[in-house]
Amino acid sequence: MSENELPEAPTEELDELDEDDRLRPAFVRAVLDAVEAGDDEEARTLVEPLHPADIADLFELTPQEDRTALARAVTDLLDADVFAEMNDYVREDLIDALEPHEVADIASELDTDDAVAIIEDMDEDGQRAVLRAMEPDDRAAIEEALSYPEESAGRLMQRDLVAVPEHWTVGDVITYLRKQEDLTTDFWEVFVVDPGHRPIGTCALSWILRTPHWVPVGDVMSREQTLIPVDMDQEEVALRFQKYALISAAVTDGSGRLVGMITVDDVVHIIQQEAGEDVLRLSGAGDGDINEPIRLTVKTRLTWLVVNLATAMFAASVVKLFEGTIATFALLAVLMPIVSGMGGNAGTQTLAVVVRAIATNQLTNSNTRWMVLRELRIAAANGAMLGLLIGVGTFLIFGRGDLALVIGSAMVINNLTAGLGGVLVPVTLDRFNVDPAVSSAVFVTTLTDTMGFFAFLGLATLWGLHG
Amino acid sequence: MSENELPEAPTEELDELDEDDRLRPAFVRAVLDAVEAGDDEEARTLVEPLHPADIADLFELTPQEDRTALARAVTDLLDADVFAEMNDYVREDLIDALEPHEVADIASELDTDDAVAIIEDMDEDGQRAVLRAMEPDDRAAIEEALSYPEESAGRLMQRDLVAVPEHWTVGDVITYLRKQEDLTTDFWEVFVVDPGHRPIGTCALSWILRTPHWVPVGDVMSREQTLIPVDMDQEEVALRFQKYALISAAVTDGSGRLVGMITVDDVVHIIQQEAGEDVLRLSGAGDGDINEPIRLTVKTRLTWLVVNLATAMFAASVVKLFEGTIATFALLAVLMPIVSGMGGNAGTQTLAVVVRAIATNQLTNSNTRWMVLRELRIAAANGAMLGLLIGVGTFLIFGRGDLALVIGSAMVINNLTAGLGGVLVPVTLDRFNVDPAVSSAVFVTTLTDTMGFFAFLGLATLWGLHG
Repeated sequence: MSENELPEAPTEELDELDEDDRLRPAFVRAVLDAVEAGDDEEARTLVEPLHPADIADLFELTPQEDRTALARAVTDLLDADVFAEMNDYVREDLIDALEPHEVADIASELDTDDAVAIIEDMDEDGQRAVLRAMEPDDRAAIEEALSYPEESAGRLMQRDLVAVPEHWTVGDVITYLRKQEDLTTDFWEVFVVDPGHRPIGTCALSWILRTPHWVPVGDVMSREQTLIPVDMDQEEVALRFQKYALISAAVTDGSGRLVGMITVDDVVHIIQQEAGEDVLRLSGAGDGDINEPIRLTVKTRLTWLVVNLATAMFAASVVKLFEGTIATFALLAVLMPIVSGMGGNAGTQTLAVVVRAIATNQLTNSNTRWMVLRELRIAAANGAMLGLLIGVGTFLIFGRGDLALVIGSAMVINNLTAGLGGVLVPVTLDRFNVDPAVSSAVFVTTLTDTMGFFAFLGLATLWGLHG
Repeated sequence: MSENELPEAPTEELDELDEDDRLRPAFVRAVLDAVEAGDDEEARTLVEPLHPADIADLFELTPQEDRTALARAVTDLLDADVFAEMNDYVREDLIDALEPHEVADIASELDTDDAVAIIEDMDEDGQRAVLRAMEPDDRAAIEEALSYPEESAGRLMQRDLVAVPEHWTVGDVITYLRKQEDLTTDFWEVFVVDPGHRPIGTCALSWILRTPHWVPVGDVMSREQTLIPVDMDQEEVALRFQKYALISAAVTDGSGRLVGMITVDDVVHIIQQEAGEDVLRLSGAGDGDINEPIRLTVKTRLTWLVVNLATAMFAASVVKLFEGTIATFALLAVLMPIVSGMGGNAGTQTLAVVVRAIATNQLTNSNTRWMVLRELRIAAANGAMLGLLIGVGTFLIFGRGDLALVIGSAMVINNLTAGLGGVLVPVTLDRFNVDPAVSSAVFVTTLTDTMGFFAFLGLATLWGLHG
């Protein structure tokens, strides 16, 4: 890229990318046309100036059936960095098409965490073949990482790091760094350890650079440090990085020894993914990865839809109780979905807020009661307003005061139900260690549907409404 | 904290925090009890060992009416770092209770970006009073930052950075750094600039530390750099940091001159916030901040609910068309919410996936057509399965083949509608530069409600179904 890049022209003004830093459709088409025409030379010329992250994007934007041909055309540009940036499913596809020794070559070039990300998705036979083809050192590091649970700090961390004893001077550290030729990774902090290799402090590189040579690192380092246990879940890791504004953090094993380091660039992905997951889970769309094999997507979504079908039938059975009332006054059937639907909308609002607040550690046992009261006050205000609106509307359109009162009251009742359920359902699920984002919505909408039908049709029946 | 901290005990095992790094309710209660009893000494003793981020959390977990009393009790612990970590609304509350010169003192201690975050929320009079109380240098920096649009790179960046000319050696850089005593901020990279102060390369501190003194920085630096225009939206900034795994980035003005630097720890917040915003916007919960004044929350949510009420009435008017059919066959009213509700569920799934894919730049013009076909295939598979299930279920429960066929077909039609609408609505809104997360849901659910009622009741009427 460097040849094209004048200082005046920021990266985003290059031709391949649009103003939002996305590959232009015309560019993607040009590459795929070249590949289809067998003009690998042209394809390579087009792709070569791209950043690895953009090459990865190019593969994601290429239809699945054309990806292998594209890969064959630009093989020499497909380096480890490109694979590290690629979507899991797209990468899996490509990796499956490679020989084990080719995968091993790619994995050897990567930091442990990126190599693990590639290898952990392969089947066991594939993993074994790749590991056999690697250097013993690399293999040992990856095998150890794979021994930690998925999505744990152990999988995320890299082993390459700089750890020095407390009595070293700043000069010692600099001399040591100049000699470490096999240190391949970027690092931003140096860890200071005791004789048992337990971290006792962290030293940012800028402090080292700005301190005279003769000062011991023990005097420069910060003793306040956030240590990450090797089995900590990646979501917790991400929250710590965010809360304490960390750039890197030491990972320790059960006995407190320094075993690895996690850097913020690996965590940024997870923060994005975990925060985005909530919206997908709340709607029952699973991972929501658009590159997921379609069969898997159908399975995930269908499971959720079938559960919803069951609860919808349950709600319908409540309507069935009032079939007689509806038969004599069909207008009730016209109005009833308004009450249930509006309850669902209000419930979803509360739910979204509560699920996010739980995920970001803002809602804890300390303020649950306050949160319930807050949502009930909001529900009362919104319910009263909506009840008034629909009541007046009903009266104006159908000229019936009794019907207006019934639908207005049902609206208030269902809004309060939505507010209460919207907090209590996710909080309760969270107490039982069930992810509230996954399963709250089905409970809450069942609640608001059922209560909507029951309150409206029940009040109408009690009142003896008829056409 | 350092006194309590043995190397064996990671931070999270301290008593104030639970295993998820959240303040324990018992601890929060102990602090508030001390404040209420007027025992400020005890409150200070409890709060003192906390990290600034945890002190900020403590204020967020404290009921609004008790926050001022708590602030008075622990005033001397309320430093700039605590304010930088605090939720916007909670901070605004506390800032309002302070004198302008106190706010100015706090702001002076902060990096420009954090100072701006505090001052930008104040009203104009407040801002002017605080700025007048600041040192001219600090004031100029903040006034310039405030001149950039909200949520732009200009607001996020800090001015304190290290920029060196290309011809300097690594040794020159180190000497320069040792002399820069007024550089208060942490930094991770050094920017190399041309004589016009335009960035031409970036140099990680670890490279400087590992390179001999006599090498020019021009030979060590990377010329591939991602420059951030000063008016770029913060969401775009966050996407760039994530895509190119950046630790820090140079911010340039319209003429390409280096005017500031953004570091990843400021971006991590935004990534989390922007990704989480989607779920809140999709559900019409606005910002979804639990510390937002309740009147504002009611207003945001109510606006959305009233729009939904209008669309629900529109959908109900479709049912009204078939009032006659329902009057002769009330069972239709029992089953009709199942068809509309399931369409809504399927539409929400597609919508969630598409909104996320648009927000993360995964769905672009290049693959929209592919995405539509993908969702239609999924909708066909799910629709067929759900249609079969509800058809068989209806037949078994009510023993009516005609009703089973009608509800099964309506289910297929509504699933296809949901899949198509779930992609086309957000994609179209995005083309017109409307945030698809904010307004898609209302269109899609209106579509699925209306189509659900219309297909089911319409087919039933065509078929001449009656009880």
